[in-house]
Amino acid sequence: MDKDRLDPWGSSTIKDYSRLQSEFGIEPVAPLLQRFKTPSHHLSRGIDFGQRDLVRVLDAVDKNKPYAVMSGIKPDGSFHLGNKMTADDMVYFQSLSKKATVFYAIADVEAYADNGLSFNDTSKIATKNVADILALGLDPERAVVYKQSEEMRVMRMSTIFSRSVTNNMLKAIYGERQIGLYLSALIQAGDILMPQLADFGGPKPVLVPVGADQDPHIRLARDLAAKHSDEFGFEPPSAIYHRLEFALTGGYKMSKRVPESGFTLDDTPSEASKRVLSAFTGGRATVEEQRRLGGRADVCPVYDLYRFHFAIDDEHSQRVYRECVEGTRMCGECKQEAASLVRRFLQDHHKRREALIDDARELLTSSRRFLASTGR
Amino acid sequence: MDKDRLDPWGSSTIKDYSRLQSEFGIEPVAPLLQRFKTPSHHLSRGIDFGQRDLVRVLDAVDKNKPYAVMSGIKPDGSFHLGNKMTADDMVYFQSLSKKATVFYAIADVEAYADNGLSFNDTSKIATKNVADILALGLDPERAVVYKQSEEMRVMRMSTIFSRSVTNNMLKAIYGERQIGLYLSALIQAGDILMPQLADFGGPKPVLVPVGADQDPHIRLARDLAAKHSDEFGFEPPSAIYHRLEFALTGGYKMSKRVPESGFTLDDTPSEASKRVLSAFTGGRATVEEQRRLGGRADVCPVYDLYRFHFAIDDEHSQRVYRECVEGTRMCGECKQEAASLVRRFLQDHHKRREALIDDARELLTSSRRFLASTGR
Repeated sequence: MDKDRLDPWGSSTIKDYSRLQSEFGIEPVAPLLQRFKTPSHHLSRGIDFGQRDLVRVLDAVDKNKPYAVMSGIKPDGSFHLGNKMTADDMVYFQSLSKKATVFYAIADVEAYADNGLSFNDTSKIATKNVADILALGLDPERAVVYKQSEEMRVMRMSTIFSRSVTNNMLKAIYGERQIGLYLSALIQAGDILMPQLADFGGPKPVLVPVGADQDPHIRLARDLAAKHSDEFGFEPPSAIYHRLEFALTGGYKMSKRVPESGFTLDDTPSEASKRVLSAFTGGRATVEEQRRLGGRADVCPVYDLYRFHFAIDDEHSQRVYRECVEGTRMCGECKQEAASLVRRFLQDHHKRREALIDDARELLTSSRRFLASTGR
Repeated sequence: MDKDRLDPWGSSTIKDYSRLQSEFGIEPVAPLLQRFKTPSHHLSRGIDFGQRDLVRVLDAVDKNKPYAVMSGIKPDGSFHLGNKMTADDMVYFQSLSKKATVFYAIADVEAYADNGLSFNDTSKIATKNVADILALGLDPERAVVYKQSEEMRVMRMSTIFSRSVTNNMLKAIYGERQIGLYLSALIQAGDILMPQLADFGGPKPVLVPVGADQDPHIRLARDLAAKHSDEFGFEPPSAIYHRLEFALTGGYKMSKRVPESGFTLDDTPSEASKRVLSAFTGGRATVEEQRRLGGRADVCPVYDLYRFHFAIDDEHSQRVYRECVEGTRMCGECKQEAASLVRRFLQDHHKRREALIDDARELLTSSRRFLASTGR
C-alpha cells in the first residue's frame, strides 16, 4: 500500500488493514457489531472491516427512519466477484429496514468512454447486471436503478462540484491524474449524493459499500457534502469497507483487467471451476511441509473463496481455515471442494438470473418512470 | 496579448489581430468577402476579421445544404454588447439560407455554479435572453434553444471527451486551470458538436460566431471533432471571429465583470447614455490638439459603439471615423450623438423585446418538445 494514498483505479494490495485506520481515518466495524441482530457473513467473518459514519445508518434502522444504500456498476459485460461483494452488502443493508431504498447506478457513459460499448450494448448488459443483483437477493420494491447517460441530476451535480474542488484537493486525494478520471470521480460523488436531493425526500443517511481501495471516492464525496451542505443540506455519506480478495493468480487484488485473477457470474460453471482448480494457493512446497507447518490461509485466494462467498456458513469457513493452518487440509482436496461449491453456486445463480430477467427489465422501466416523475 | 495563448476567461487585449493568423492559424475573412451577396455590417466594417473553415458554411449556403449556427449565453442576468455581437452574427448567418438552423445553449448550470443562481432564476432570465435575440432578428422557426441542465447529450459528450483529452492538451490550449474551467470547456465542446449528432441529422457544417479571445474553445472543439470523427463522423466546426470592443472605461475589452466597461440591453436608455457620455475616448488633451492632430478613433470605445452597433449604415460609420481622425469632430458632440443613438436603440429594443416575450416562451417550449422527441 502506498503510504500516501489508495488507488481506486489500480491494483492496490492492502497488507495491513489497520493502517487504513491510522492513515485515512477509516474506523473499525468491530465496536458496532453488537448493534446487528443478524450480522451478514461479511460482518461475522470480518470481511467488512471498516466504516465511516455507519452509526448514522444504524440509528436510522433503529428509529425506523429513511436511509439509502448506494452502489453501481460499469456495464462492461462482466459481473465479477467484486461486484458480488458490493451487491451482497447492498442486499443485506436493504434488508435491515423497510425504510431503506437502494440506488443503483449503471455507469454506461463510462463503459462507452472506456470500453467503446454503445448504449445499445450497455443497455442489454445492464439488464443482465440487474438480474444478477436480483438473483443475489435485492428487493426490487425498494430499489431505483438509473443509467448515467439519462440521469441529468448526477451530471448537473458533478458540474457544480467541479467548481468547488481545486486541482490541489483532487491531487491530494487521487494523485496526479488525467482529467477524465477526475471527472469520473466527480460524477461518482454526484451518484453518492443524489439520494439526498429534495427530489428523493431530502437529506438522509446514505451507505456506500465499497472495497477498501475505493476510499478516495468516499472522502471526495464527504468533502463535497460538507462544502455544499448549506445549499443542499447534505449529511456526510456513510461507507462500509470490505477487504479485497486475493487474485486466483496469486498476490494483488482480483481485477477485471486480469480475467484469470477471478471469475465472473457469467462464466460457465466448468470454466470457473477450472480457474479454481488451477489457482495459486497458500500451500507449502510439499505435502510433508504442509502437514508440518500448515497452509497459509491468510494469503490464499482459495480460502478467500470460502470465506468471502461460498462457505455454506461461518462454521464451515472457520473449519476450512483451521484445517488448513493445522496442516490437515491439503490444497488439492481443498480446491476440489471449492470448485464444486463454485460450480453449484453458478448453476443455481444462472437459473435464478434466467428466471428474473423480466423482473430486471421491469425494474429498469419502473425506475425510469419514477425518476422522470420526480424533479424540478 | 499573451504570446502563447488567448484567455477566454480573462480580459484579453488584442492589439494586433494579424498575429492571430500567424500564431493560431485563424484565417482572414477578407478573401471570402466576395462570396457574400449582402454582407452584414460585421463583415463590411471589418468587425468579423477572421475565420476557420468558413468556406464549409458558404458552400452549404450555395448548395442549399443544411448547416447549423451555434452559440449560447450564460443566463446571469445581463445581455451585454458582446452577447449582442454574437447574436448579430447568428441572426445574419441564419438569414443566409432556409437550410440554416440555430442552436442556442443556455448555460444555466454554469450560472448556478458561478453565480449561485437557482434554476428558477435562470429560467426567467433565459426567457428574457431569448426575447433579446428574437428582438435582434432571430427567426424562431429555425432555432433550437436548450438548457445545459436538461440536455443530456451535451453532458454525455463532455464525459466522453474528458477521456480522450490529456491534461497536457488542455494545458497547451488554456494554460494551467482549475478542473471546473476545463470541464466547462469540454461542455462547450459538447455544445459545439451536438448539432452534428445523428439525432439532428448527422454531420454538417456548424458555424460558431465568437470573440477573438474565445478561439481556444474553437481549437478544442476542432481537436475533439478530429479525435472522434470515426465514431461520430464529425466535420471540423467552423468559426467566425469578431474583434473585441474597447471598454467604455478605456483599454481592455468590455467585460461582464466590470459593468461600467459597457452596458447591457437591460439597462435603461438613460443609464446607458450616461455611461456613453462619461466614457473614455481616443480624443486629445485639448480641442486645439484634436483639431491639429485628429482623434484616435482606432482606440476609441465611443467610435466602437458606432462601428460595432449603432451607426445607421456603413457610410455613417465611415463618416464618424473620417471626421474624428481629420480633427473636425470633437469628443463632446460625438458622445452626444452616440448617446442619443444608444438611447433610441434601447427604447426600440425594449419595446420589441416586450412584444416578443411570449414568443420567447413559446420557442423555449417548442424547443424542449422537439429535443425530447429526438434521440434514443
